[in-house]
Amino acid sequence: MFLGKVVGTVWATRKDEELVGMKFQIVKHVGVDYSLKETFVVAVDTVQAGVGDVVLVCSGSSARQTALTKNKPVDAVIMAVVDKLDVSD
Amino acid sequence: MFLGKVVGTVWATRKDEELVGMKFQIVKHVGVDYSLKETFVVAVDTVQAGVGDVVLVCSGSSARQTALTKNKPVDAVIMAVVDKLDVSD
Amino acid sequence: MFLGKVVGTVWATRKDEELVGMKFQIVKHVGVDYSLKETFVVAVDTVQAGVGDVVLVCSGSSARQTALTKNKPVDAVIMAVVDKLDVSD
Amino acid sequence: MFLGKVVGTVWATRKDEELVGMKFQIVKHVGVDYSLKETFVVAVDTVQAGVGDVVLVCSGSSARQTALTKNKPVDAVIMAVVDKLDVSD
Amino acid sequence: MFLGKVVGTVWATRKDEELVGMKFQIVKHVGVDYSLKETFVVAVDTVQAGVGDVVLVCSGSSARQTALTKNKPVDAVIMAVVDKLDVSD
Repeated sequence: MFLGKVVGTVWATRKDEELVGMKFQIVKHVGVDYSLKETFVVAVDTVQAGVGDVVLVCSGSSARQTALTKNKPVDAVIMAVVDKLDVSD
Repeated sequence: MFLGKVVGTVWATRKDEELVGMKFQIVKHVGVDYSLKETFVVAVDTVQAGVGDVVLVCSGSSARQTALTKNKPVDAVIMAVVDKLDVSD
Repeated sequence: MFLGKVVGTVWATRKDEELVGMKFQIVKHVGVDYSLKETFVVAVDTVQAGVGDVVLVCSGSSARQTALTKNKPVDAVIMAVVDKLDVSD
Repeated sequence: MFLGKVVGTVWATRKDEELVGMKFQIVKHVGVDYSLKETFVVAVDTVQAGVGDVVLVCSGSSARQTALTKNKPVDAVIMAVVDKLDVSD
Repeated sequence: MFLGKVVGTVWATRKDEELVGMKFQIVKHVGVDYSLKETFVVAVDTVQAGVGDVVLVCSGSSARQTALTKNKPVDAVIMAVVDKLDVSD
């Protein structure tokens, strides 16, 4: 999984019919100090994450292992909202 | 998913027979400000996206989770046309 | 697999219910000389790896091939703790 | 899929028995102007592509969705020879 | 697949029980001129490749399509030892 921060939302009316009702969030990569990177992905939200939340994003076929995304054309999913990090390096 | 812009089309007569009838679009990566990156992928269109459209592209095995691409040798699919982005970072 | 070092832990109360009880470790990439890179992933621990341990991380669908992660939305798993490397290049 | 150019062939006698008879081509990434990049992959040919051909390469589990590569340890396959590109960016 | 060179071995006593008996080789990426890159992966050997051998590595779910790695938490496998390359670019 990668650590990211929700910075916005994608609106798309014309889409695969399997995707109706899903929320597409824009998630920028962040460092372990929560510093924002420039790179981002668009991920389906499964935990009601909002803008500003630090989250974990799961990618690839594993992104389809939630009740919401099963068998859907989705390759990234927000599956946790981060409370805090313990880091010692 | 990644955010991209359709910039062209690939023509290929000689191909795996499972791919006949599919439209292969060239999709460049874009930033959240729609700035064009140099990197691109070739993705199968499932939503009649045209040149100039900003789109979402789904990659990997998830790209086979549409009616058109099921069990086909396809690793990237356009599954939504973007109307707008709400971004606040 | 990639070679990494556990540098911390992610705490997340709000998450997909399939993930309850899993430990999410922050794993930085390391070189063959154990030098720490800046890049990292968050991986589910299956071998009781602790902070400071050098580990192997398995990614993608293969990360779901353990008893703990089967059919779960997990795309990275720590599946070995490294004792030593023999390197001659 | 990515756009590439076949620049050579890999010869390997000692290999997984499932791979006997396959042709392994060296494919460099190319830009939309057909400029050669330094990066490359080794892909199994399914469309009799030759050196100098511009091709589409499909990666990951989708590379196993051809008659030749089904259930084989192959993660990249040439599934189309490109005739031309229409690009307007 | 990517082209690599075996430069060493990983020793790991504490690991997922499905991995007992496997040999984990350190494989650096090489160019088409066999020049060593700095990047590397750890791959399970299925063809008795030794240090110094130039090999092909298969990644992702395709790495589980060998008799040795089926259903195992393994995301990279050495599936061929390279005899020679024919390159003309």
